Amino acid sequence: MRDVCVVGVGMSKWGEVWRKSLRQLFVDAAADAVKNSGVDHLDSLYVGCMSGGMFVGQEHLGALMADYLGMRGLPAMRVESACASGGMSMRAAYMEVASGVSDIVLAGGVEKMTDCAGDDATYALAAAADQEYEVFHGATFPGLYAMMAHAHMAKYGTTRDMLSAVSVKNHKNGSMNPVAQYPFEITMEGVANSVMVADPLHILDCSPITDGAAAVIVTTEEVAKKLGKPYIKVTGTGCGTDTIALAQRDDLTVIKASQIAAGNALKMAGKTIKDIQFAEMHDCFTIAELIISESIGVFEPGKAGAAVLAGETALDGKFPINSSGGLKSKGHPVGATGIAQIVEVYKQLTGQAEGGRQIAGSPKIGMAQNMGGSGASSVVHILEVA
Amino acid sequence: MRDVCVVGVGMSKWGEVWRKSLRQLFVDAAADAVKNSGVDHLDSLYVGCMSGGMFVGQEHLGALMADYLGMRGLPAMRVESACASGGMSMRAAYMEVASGVSDIVLAGGVEKMTDCAGDDATYALAAAADQEYEVFHGATFPGLYAMMAHAHMAKYGTTRDMLSAVSVKNHKNGSMNPVAQYPFEITMEGVANSVMVADPLHILDCSPITDGAAAVIVTTEEVAKKLGKPYIKVTGTGCGTDTIALAQRDDLTVIKASQIAAGNALKMAGKTIKDIQFAEMHDCFTIAELIISESIGVFEPGKAGAAVLAGETALDGKFPINSSGGLKSKGHPVGATGIAQIVEVYKQLTGQAEGGRQIAGSPKIGMAQNMGGSGASSVVHILEVA
Repeated sequence: MRDVCVVGVGMSKWGEVWRKSLRQLFVDAAADAVKNSGVDHLDSLYVGCMSGGMFVGQEHLGALMADYLGMRGLPAMRVESACASGGMSMRAAYMEVASGVSDIVLAGGVEKMTDCAGDDATYALAAAADQEYEVFHGATFPGLYAMMAHAHMAKYGTTRDMLSAVSVKNHKNGSMNPVAQYPFEITMEGVANSVMVADPLHILDCSPITDGAAAVIVTTEEVAKKLGKPYIKVTGTGCGTDTIALAQRDDLTVIKASQIAAGNALKMAGKTIKDIQFAEMHDCFTIAELIISESIGVFEPGKAGAAVLAGETALDGKFPINSSGGLKSKGHPVGATGIAQIVEVYKQLTGQAEGGRQIAGSPKIGMAQNMGGSGASSVVHILEVA
Repeated sequence: MRDVCVVGVGMSKWGEVWRKSLRQLFVDAAADAVKNSGVDHLDSLYVGCMSGGMFVGQEHLGALMADYLGMRGLPAMRVESACASGGMSMRAAYMEVASGVSDIVLAGGVEKMTDCAGDDATYALAAAADQEYEVFHGATFPGLYAMMAHAHMAKYGTTRDMLSAVSVKNHKNGSMNPVAQYPFEITMEGVANSVMVADPLHILDCSPITDGAAAVIVTTEEVAKKLGKPYIKVTGTGCGTDTIALAQRDDLTVIKASQIAAGNALKMAGKTIKDIQFAEMHDCFTIAELIISESIGVFEPGKAGAAVLAGETALDGKFPINSSGGLKSKGHPVGATGIAQIVEVYKQLTGQAEGGRQIAGSPKIGMAQNMGGSGASSVVHILEVA
């Protein structure tokens, strides 16, 4: 298997981007990644997107984006795994380069969510849940994660403050990220007093609806070296799944898909979780970040909340999580999120994180953990300084 | 790069399958493929599907299908390229095995289209066209292909009889395929007198709306040999794209994406089109089969119609096309079609085509050509006797 690297990244400002279409969002990020990497062509293109169809009536995104990127004819494919679509785009690009089929592949992700009127965005997102056993009965994602939060609180005594601390930390990091949707700080009281969405989750426990895209150039080490731009190595890729319907899981306080994905990625990289110095994690809701960090072994079960309160996952803590601001502050255009995580790890490992959010001590190895739905799918990458 | 093989296939009866859900359709085909191959586990799973979201409100199909196949935890991903989603599933599985990331991968495809009420199926399918420049203005696929047909007729004198002959041939082949949706013969007069959909295309020029799934097991030659079941080699995979919107193409009588895809696949296999003995082609409309067979070089531009009329593409002709019955007779559950093409080529190359449709003379090399939308994406595989 050939070594695989990331050599350039692109990401435009996230938020409610009324003046850009789905295709324009993607092309802006992709053109940025091409420019920043210095490559003079692509061999193929992946688009991670959860539901171009339900959000804006447009599927067939591989061909569309290749054309609008000015590369008509280019082999191109969309991949999907709900909110883990971006991470899957990275994984597919990894395999194409590793296999030798292609040398230079663009892995991108995009979602245009705010064009959906009223309840439609909630309905589109619900397609990541089990249509027959959850959605049909009225379940939506805040409700599903609220059940996971209650289970975690009941089993481990997780508190309101622990949940709030995740959001406060991520907003603090995001306030330093120029492309974040909500680049400002919030307070513990602000989270606790924000409007209730699904008990115990308030609106400031929830990631927002976002328009955005991100892209990275995936290539061989040989090509990366020749380009003369900063590059990092992808040393592990892992994927895992679980039942979509929460009711069929053994334990709501663990996300098994992320356990499997992280285990596979670490094994491939020849590492353990102790070797990882920082991570981007899928904080679609505050409770998710706590459960994931326990499920993949950063903290013992039930110990993540206290660790966050103690500052252990802050930018200057011993295991910084979501230096980018995470989904909460940076935004969560579902198909783009997994690629934006790779963008952040790339920036941290190459010393390019802007706005004062660079992790001190020149970290050498980071992780990107992306997840679909209420944790039915997960994809994890291990990224290291070359 | 490792050699890649197909060692077992599965496909259930296609049609209006009211009593099976999306997940059940997929699982039936996938379980069949697992059983027929003799593998005792899978390393990962791909689901080709155009729009589970728009058809039945269900995305996130990788995790869902892994779970319902009884393989909870399995790495899984959905891939999409409109009606070429099945072929892309094969291509993704090829790369995963070729890269060495996995040894045994299931490539499947599925679409549940008849649960959509009234115009909804047409609207969902239109998401494969350009939403902003075609669909918004009222274009649907019969209309788009009708324009291609008119262009081909004007340039080359292609006739009503030539179009009808494609449909008659494919129904004749399909009448011998036990899983076909419409396994019966039709006549030249029957096609010409059937109801008009979009001039010059009558309803018997159009492939139907179908529920169905198909699956194949993709593995290394080493594993395939050990299993002791008939297997074939995948010697080439190629992909190409073009602008989605017809108005932006140079020439409506050529499908460039299929030209690029076939060229890439043949190059990889070290072959030319002259080496190919038979093919499955994407006859979503009769005109498509004519244009594709010219675009990829089976016939000179403008000569395909006469060749079909002369029986050259019949089962006993010199280049049989769509021995399975094609999309027209077998049915066209859009995400499954590309995999069903691989199923047919596998059956022909291993001498297992049922019902009297086995191509005489033990063919050694076949092609599967799958296509998205009005030809904005295409994926081609070259398959050979091991």
